[in-house]
Amino acid sequence: MQDFHIGKLVVVGVGLIGGSVAAALKRERLVDRVVGVGRSRANMQQALSAGVIDEQAQDLTSAARGAELVLVAVPVRQTASVLQQLRQAVADGVIVTDAGSTKRDFVHMARDIFGSSVKHVVPGHPIAGAERSGVAAATADLYTGKRVVLTPLPDNENKFVERVASMWRACGANVIQMSPEHHDAVFSAVSHLPHVLSYALVELIASRDNAEELFSFAAGGFRDFTRIAGSSPEMWRDICDANADQLLRDIDAFQQALSLLAGYIRSGDMDKVEAVFAAAARARNAWVNSLK
Amino acid sequence: MQDFHIGKLVVVGVGLIGGSVAAALKRERLVDRVVGVGRSRANMQQALSAGVIDEQAQDLTSAARGAELVLVAVPVRQTASVLQQLRQAVADGVIVTDAGSTKRDFVHMARDIFGSSVKHVVPGHPIAGAERSGVAAATADLYTGKRVVLTPLPDNENKFVERVASMWRACGANVIQMSPEHHDAVFSAVSHLPHVLSYALVELIASRDNAEELFSFAAGGFRDFTRIAGSSPEMWRDICDANADQLLRDIDAFQQALSLLAGYIRSGDMDKVEAVFAAAARARNAWVNSLK
Repeated sequence: MQDFHIGKLVVVGVGLIGGSVAAALKRERLVDRVVGVGRSRANMQQALSAGVIDEQAQDLTSAARGAELVLVAVPVRQTASVLQQLRQAVADGVIVTDAGSTKRDFVHMARDIFGSSVKHVVPGHPIAGAERSGVAAATADLYTGKRVVLTPLPDNENKFVERVASMWRACGANVIQMSPEHHDAVFSAVSHLPHVLSYALVELIASRDNAEELFSFAAGGFRDFTRIAGSSPEMWRDICDANADQLLRDIDAFQQALSLLAGYIRSGDMDKVEAVFAAAARARNAWVNSLK
Repeated sequence: MQDFHIGKLVVVGVGLIGGSVAAALKRERLVDRVVGVGRSRANMQQALSAGVIDEQAQDLTSAARGAELVLVAVPVRQTASVLQQLRQAVADGVIVTDAGSTKRDFVHMARDIFGSSVKHVVPGHPIAGAERSGVAAATADLYTGKRVVLTPLPDNENKFVERVASMWRACGANVIQMSPEHHDAVFSAVSHLPHVLSYALVELIASRDNAEELFSFAAGGFRDFTRIAGSSPEMWRDICDANADQLLRDIDAFQQALSLLAGYIRSGDMDKVEAVFAAAARARNAWVNSLK
């Protein structure tokens, strides 16, 4: 970790995710210069004032010239346009990594845009909270003890992957590698499906005639269960779109599990209901205890 | 509120719920004597030491003699046996109320056991956290600003209902009245259904071959979504059993809503997906803001 140092880092999208990488590397004096590229003038000004970036650039193509590494941390919808602007830099050997929540779509997009230069692109996904957004929420500690998944390509030379992994480790993260396919399957189950279920439940209740009364009787359990239904609709629409096939398989599996449980309740087979609940409670409590 | 005062209160089940009522009334000096009845010797001893109860009794039938009010706050499975032991007291005019999470089943049970004396029974449900249990978790503040639902019977004289309502208000709660049917429909939607969904999701993940890996990538959103899946399997089995018909209707409605959403995702109709997510996020955030 100690031996990591980077010359010029370009961060595209200086929000919670990108800003926190810059903040961590700057705090540890592991980067010479951070150039920020972003669309919100106010946000970029704040990033400059806070010392998270050293300079801002309007033109990504020229900003990426001479950079050692470019971190793309923009909403999924902007990724294609950002990658287009990085074509020359990537052809010249600049390493590019990203922070998107789905990986197969990013790999596909990167291959389309970069062709054989894609060997310089190392897809990534930091597993860190996204409650708040913008550079104001960025912190040098965001990744401490958190996990970052890299989904390297067969085309990547190992040194490129290692360079990106080192950057994340320098931010305090633990780096794990897996295939893009496996990544998308894992996060469909533990993240995308729960979001869909939470949104669906809240919408079901909100659309009832007595919605106001129903919400007035909702308590702490409901609040926690539905916290993720307060997430950005645009971001989650894009995630559902990018991971549609895997997510649909998981929705289907969930519906089958729920139907089975409903069948037990309908037939008064309460021992089986209790067995399902008990297995879930055991697994959930064991997991939470393992986090302590 | 000021004019509430009670002579002898019997609390059956001196845990979080029953213990907190006793603690609140004693703190405000609104009760002369609290007699606790419970099965756990250690818990009862703790209730005595903490001054939550003044004495403990083994025999409920004799303990209830001369009481003004009996609060039944035991797990659903014990309710029938407790009510049996209260037959004489209820016939003698002692007011009985309960704290169960479902109300139609309690009403049915009370009618069966008490016949025309059921007019002295006022069903209730305090909406207060149940994260922890036992008298050690009881606190005089548990009900401050919380809601208590009473589902009075047509047989109840108004003064009995008012007496129970006054007790809860003396504990700091806001009292609302509705029918047992309406109560069970409301709580099926905002409490029972979310519990079933959370249990079902955790069990789905726990039953997969790579469960350990999946849990290792679960983050804060998953933790909140599944908190209620750590709840008591026995208690929730009984709630699902008691409210089966209403809960099955809600599970069915949820399955339909989820199928609709899956259909949009399958056909790439992402504007409709976003519309559902946005409606949910709006409703959820409006609700949470209304709590502040």
